[in-house]
Amino acid sequence: MENISSNKAFGGWHKQYRHDSAVLGCSMRFAIYLPPQAAQGAPVPVLYWLSGLTCSDENFMQKAGALRVAAELGMAIVAADTSPRGEGVADDDGYDLGQGAGFYLNATAAPWMRHYRMYDYVSQELPALIAAHFPVSGRRAIAGHSMGGHGALLCALKRPHDYVSVSAFSPICHPLNAPWGQKAFAAYLGDDKQQWRQWDASLLMAAATQPAQQLPARVDIGLDDSFLAVQLQPQALAQAAEASGYPLQLHQHPGYDHSYYFVASFIEDQLRFHAQHLFAA
Amino acid sequence: MENISSNKAFGGWHKQYRHDSAVLGCSMRFAIYLPPQAAQGAPVPVLYWLSGLTCSDENFMQKAGALRVAAELGMAIVAADTSPRGEGVADDDGYDLGQGAGFYLNATAAPWMRHYRMYDYVSQELPALIAAHFPVSGRRAIAGHSMGGHGALLCALKRPHDYVSVSAFSPICHPLNAPWGQKAFAAYLGDDKQQWRQWDASLLMAAATQPAQQLPARVDIGLDDSFLAVQLQPQALAQAAEASGYPLQLHQHPGYDHSYYFVASFIEDQLRFHAQHLFAA
Repeated sequence: MENISSNKAFGGWHKQYRHDSAVLGCSMRFAIYLPPQAAQGAPVPVLYWLSGLTCSDENFMQKAGALRVAAELGMAIVAADTSPRGEGVADDDGYDLGQGAGFYLNATAAPWMRHYRMYDYVSQELPALIAAHFPVSGRRAIAGHSMGGHGALLCALKRPHDYVSVSAFSPICHPLNAPWGQKAFAAYLGDDKQQWRQWDASLLMAAATQPAQQLPARVDIGLDDSFLAVQLQPQALAQAAEASGYPLQLHQHPGYDHSYYFVASFIEDQLRFHAQHLFAA
Repeated sequence: MENISSNKAFGGWHKQYRHDSAVLGCSMRFAIYLPPQAAQGAPVPVLYWLSGLTCSDENFMQKAGALRVAAELGMAIVAADTSPRGEGVADDDGYDLGQGAGFYLNATAAPWMRHYRMYDYVSQELPALIAAHFPVSGRRAIAGHSMGGHGALLCALKRPHDYVSVSAFSPICHPLNAPWGQKAFAAYLGDDKQQWRQWDASLLMAAATQPAQQLPARVDIGLDDSFLAVQLQPQALAQAAEASGYPLQLHQHPGYDHSYYFVASFIEDQLRFHAQHLFAA
């Protein structure tokens, strides 16, 4: 694992690393923010952040204004990349498929199945790597934006014992029924719609009827988001939560759009939501 | 003047505009953040922000985390571009000369003199445009980063009656004696070193001995900034302030570098510093 940048920020450190991912079969970059408390001995909890289409580990760390709040609360943040990358990795000309658009699932169709196993990467390989190299506790939360909001919900719904809470900004809530999701699922998973159903947050949430399957969840949506009705469909997630009794808080914000200006406006609320659970006795 | 983007942020609005600049002889883009208070009738004061080499109006607005604090305090922020731009505008292959590197002075040497009048643009044309189109008061402060810190100090030292306060992150304090400054001044101003002296913040500050020439000033410097000793030279500014009795607060921060992670870490302190003067009775 190679450290490729270090910047002091709010008394802690933002660092980027490159490592060889066995799961993805390529070299990957991630970023970690270590709050000032991480230098004081006691392990800190970690929020994992999954970004949206076209993003890398950098967008959230640079634009969300999250580090100030993480420094105050004493939580680490890990930002993953959005797909496998590199010359030998399958790609597509579209911004919404291939490199930069991994959709946080495990691909089963050629040519994607060779490298595109982002679900296993962000939910297992990356947390194990973080635990091995940084002073973190076992308490983890997960959050993301747009495609990454879908990814965060997937991780929380498929592995509820690994996280204490989940949140998302402007997530793709029901990819089975949205153009972005349909294009990606057809490529990564092929034609078998039964497979698709295993990677749809609304279907998974509707089925999560047992308390052990449920986590405290918060979703923030901008009501002037141009992707709202066709791509995001938060009402599908709300109906799923209603059906299963899932503890979902859905916050709708008039006037806000899909951008990081929206994320920045409410990231403090989401981080304090996670802190309630990350620091619970 | 054409509105080219609008994003709700922290209850207010971030907007970008394009306009034809008579001073620069080209089309220019700027960004303004209007806090929630701007929609409530009373005019708001304005902080002008000048960015560093290679930047546009976007870097500060996206990365500094300033909008949250501006929304709380009720101040507008205007972010200018860093040079004239466009096909007919002189340029250079270097990142530190030509487009993206206007140095906030008025060029007098060919070919730059035709368009490169960034000092007149940011200190006069742009404020007049802002006053004509937005609900702002006459109270103005100015701040900037690196090359833009030099620009903010120039504006405050050359037009002290136009501003209530000035601040800078990691400014080029003594360009006459620094490689970045020497390259830019030789190109934009030619060989006459007497001319250069009119655009050097340390020389201007040393000569600002009268109270009417002085403004409350705050400079933040990272002590692990790789440009510190050769390009920035804050000790030259500190000595100038000492010589003239200029009210300069110089804050030195161990471990911090030249990046926006540093700016973000202390922007709240700088904005609260300006608020003391922008909202003074």
